Amino acid sequence: MSGRPGRIKSNRKIRYPTTDYEKIFHPRTLAIVGVSAEESGVGFGTGMLKSIMAMGFEGKIYPVNPKGGNISGMEIFKRVEDIPEKIDFAVIAVTARHVPDALEACRKKGAVGAEILSSGFGEIGTEEGKALEKQLQQTAARGIRVIGPNCFGIYCPASGLTMLPGPDLSRISGPVAFLAQSGGMAIDLAHAGNYLGIRFSKMVSFGNGADLRESELLHYLADDPETQVISMYIEGIKDGEAFFLAIKEAASKKPVIVFKGGLSIAGQRSVASHTASMGGSRVIWQSILKQAGAVQVHDSEELAQANLAFSLLPKRSFNSISIIGGGGAIGVTACDTAEQYGIDVPPLPARLQDRIGNYLPKPGSSAINPVDVANPYVSPQNLKEVLLTAAEDQRIELQILDSLLYHYKPLAKMFGKPITEITPYKELARAVRDVVDQTGKPAIAVLPNPRRGSDDMDIMELVALTRQEYVHLGIPVFDELHDAIRAIDHINTYYGGRK
Amino acid sequence: MSGRPGRIKSNRKIRYPTTDYEKIFHPRTLAIVGVSAEESGVGFGTGMLKSIMAMGFEGKIYPVNPKGGNISGMEIFKRVEDIPEKIDFAVIAVTARHVPDALEACRKKGAVGAEILSSGFGEIGTEEGKALEKQLQQTAARGIRVIGPNCFGIYCPASGLTMLPGPDLSRISGPVAFLAQSGGMAIDLAHAGNYLGIRFSKMVSFGNGADLRESELLHYLADDPETQVISMYIEGIKDGEAFFLAIKEAASKKPVIVFKGGLSIAGQRSVASHTASMGGSRVIWQSILKQAGAVQVHDSEELAQANLAFSLLPKRSFNSISIIGGGGAIGVTACDTAEQYGIDVPPLPARLQDRIGNYLPKPGSSAINPVDVANPYVSPQNLKEVLLTAAEDQRIELQILDSLLYHYKPLAKMFGKPITEITPYKELARAVRDVVDQTGKPAIAVLPNPRRGSDDMDIMELVALTRQEYVHLGIPVFDELHDAIRAIDHINTYYGGRK
Repeated sequence: MSGRPGRIKSNRKIRYPTTDYEKIFHPRTLAIVGVSAEESGVGFGTGMLKSIMAMGFEGKIYPVNPKGGNISGMEIFKRVEDIPEKIDFAVIAVTARHVPDALEACRKKGAVGAEILSSGFGEIGTEEGKALEKQLQQTAARGIRVIGPNCFGIYCPASGLTMLPGPDLSRISGPVAFLAQSGGMAIDLAHAGNYLGIRFSKMVSFGNGADLRESELLHYLADDPETQVISMYIEGIKDGEAFFLAIKEAASKKPVIVFKGGLSIAGQRSVASHTASMGGSRVIWQSILKQAGAVQVHDSEELAQANLAFSLLPKRSFNSISIIGGGGAIGVTACDTAEQYGIDVPPLPARLQDRIGNYLPKPGSSAINPVDVANPYVSPQNLKEVLLTAAEDQRIELQILDSLLYHYKPLAKMFGKPITEITPYKELARAVRDVVDQTGKPAIAVLPNPRRGSDDMDIMELVALTRQEYVHLGIPVFDELHDAIRAIDHINTYYGGRK
Repeated sequence: MSGRPGRIKSNRKIRYPTTDYEKIFHPRTLAIVGVSAEESGVGFGTGMLKSIMAMGFEGKIYPVNPKGGNISGMEIFKRVEDIPEKIDFAVIAVTARHVPDALEACRKKGAVGAEILSSGFGEIGTEEGKALEKQLQQTAARGIRVIGPNCFGIYCPASGLTMLPGPDLSRISGPVAFLAQSGGMAIDLAHAGNYLGIRFSKMVSFGNGADLRESELLHYLADDPETQVISMYIEGIKDGEAFFLAIKEAASKKPVIVFKGGLSIAGQRSVASHTASMGGSRVIWQSILKQAGAVQVHDSEELAQANLAFSLLPKRSFNSISIIGGGGAIGVTACDTAEQYGIDVPPLPARLQDRIGNYLPKPGSSAINPVDVANPYVSPQNLKEVLLTAAEDQRIELQILDSLLYHYKPLAKMFGKPITEITPYKELARAVRDVVDQTGKPAIAVLPNPRRGSDDMDIMELVALTRQEYVHLGIPVFDELHDAIRAIDHINTYYGGRK
């Protein structure tokens, strides 16, 4: 592929095999092939067994190792064939050359699918590796869906399936599905989701994607009622047309966020050794994703932030916003950033400015929009009144409150109390939630923190606790104004484009 | 101004008044006009007095308040005139309408300059405010330099002068000067510098800039031997040509980093109420700064990161780098980012790849460049060998090591020990320092952390401690690869443009 593609047309109808995804994401019986024979053993199989148990998976688990024995109070079966009932799904974590037999055994045992954690296939570039991957595909064609190989597996909070190395992921389900050609990115997003308040329906790390991969999973998620937002990290695709059609279909039903890695020459080289797929040029990808109606992001932070915004904000665009914060320069920067993204920060009418001014210290404050609250100690009650008043401007569709909580540290010191005690962060989050409820207009909190040294752990804890309060109340929180505004822009791109 | 300017030519010679800056930044005698009469009083004057004392300022301090009395064991003088000796410098923090008299009194008392913390001047837009500011300028013209009004003052680690509200800023001097039309941005950068390892020579928050402001201060810093890097946040300038010439002069001698706020319509409106200056369009500013040889940044994080890179890395450009890290997707993203900034990530020669491979786990690792170390537990000793080997490639001019330290948490849990105990972070920093010393090639550490909830305070502490180790050894640390690569790009823009 080279040059910028014109408008893409395709009448191709893609038919995917009928797959009982219910048994893949919510298995009742699960084989883990490749646990260690001793309790103290390490390795992916044992790690996964312990992680799935720690997650409280309710189904039946059957560990498998040729040596037999016991692990975590369970009998280890010597062969998959010895398992006394049919299995729904399997985790396979044996050496690459033993994987094809294990997979075939699971198929015969009735498994609808298997995730293969083992590496040593196409991605290592040897003839042997490629041949082994081919064998997996042949077995898959006989009727078992393969996730992987060279992957971290499936995370499904509702069923308690978790990916490597995730014994401590959340069991709370939510609207976001994530498909990842990188296990590391998946586990990082799962952890980030935990504190950011992104809740997941399903995550699939599909590694080399020998069988079940991006396009087919997109097709499935497009109609999955548990999923409201689809996001993905992909490095290369096997069938460009199918991928385009799958995104287009999914994006016509729900937001699709795509982080495409390997847009550069060096990146493509890196992709080849990572997941053995082919990349594609920057401009082509940009065009394909835009035409398909997807939202493109460029790093894992931007991906997480877009997920956060799409999952916690109402399903519409926000073209006109208010920004309330402490410090004039922050307001200036916010405006500059908003303009770059085509978002309006309209000056409030004089009568609203007058009323807002009553709740702010003088001199130093400014009620125009951005509203500069002049100092960081303005009470949650007053900030609530400011937000309620600004929302009276019909044009305002969303409000951002930027709080410089670290300024409470000198105050806490002066009063000899911990910063977490002296800062009214719970009241602050409550006030913002009340404003959202009373006005029907969504709000975003921004909590910047330039103090992150080991002697400022108390500030970091305060920020974490404040974020937690907001997140519990359903208010998205960003570290920086720029992040918040860029996330709004992604929302506008998606919903604006659908008008 | 409108449209994009052509090449700017100017033969204008600007003459600035001779100013004894030594007495401004390193005063031996200091008046603080406007402390509260009671010990328990608050307010800018008292805050500044206590902050300067907490900083260990070695000069003589003379507090002033018409009521007299005592504060912190010092006699309060009722009038500036009563101070028993000549003063070098003054802090003025009285109500706006009393400021002109106080300033004149300080001038008569021999002060070379005064910082005026009070607001209520030009920035409030009233006739009275503007008239008061005019009066300050008239007094200044009679021979006292004014910093402010509506500012946070001067921070000079060497002398112990500090800005509002900064009792806890570092006393360690370093190469970076910062000029700020926003006090909040200055104090934030001072705090960020503390943990990032940016050391300052001088910081000046000049607020409305009634007298001493951006161009003249640039002219001074261009030849200040204590300053190696000049950075600034400006919202508007009073004399465009003088500013252009001052930047051009300074940038011919040392890096000048400029964060220009108020590039948008709304931002300019916000600028007007913040510091009463005029902004200018995005394209014009971009062109002016480029022609003047300055490096332009767009938010306070990027500003801090550029300062960090310029102050800790050698004075040259880095066009070809190696990236060593855990997780294939990180390498892919790094390449994509590097390409966007025109930085090369060349594949290492096969003989070096072979040797690097010996130090890495298999399968899963890749020694090409980016080097994917496959898992986050590779020892500092092995990482050192990898870095030493990669540096043998003559093309490599700088190395980046990306460490996913948060993966030590499950390991720490398994061994029942604190993460800060089980993670070899001191050895890691030491290893990187050794590599830099042995190879003569600089290195950057990247410490991403997707786990920042209140139940992951231990990970946050680990990251803070690891950063501290690196910083003590003179290695710059960034949160994200993208930040590191963008900072390198700024360096390349500056030194590349001077070839």
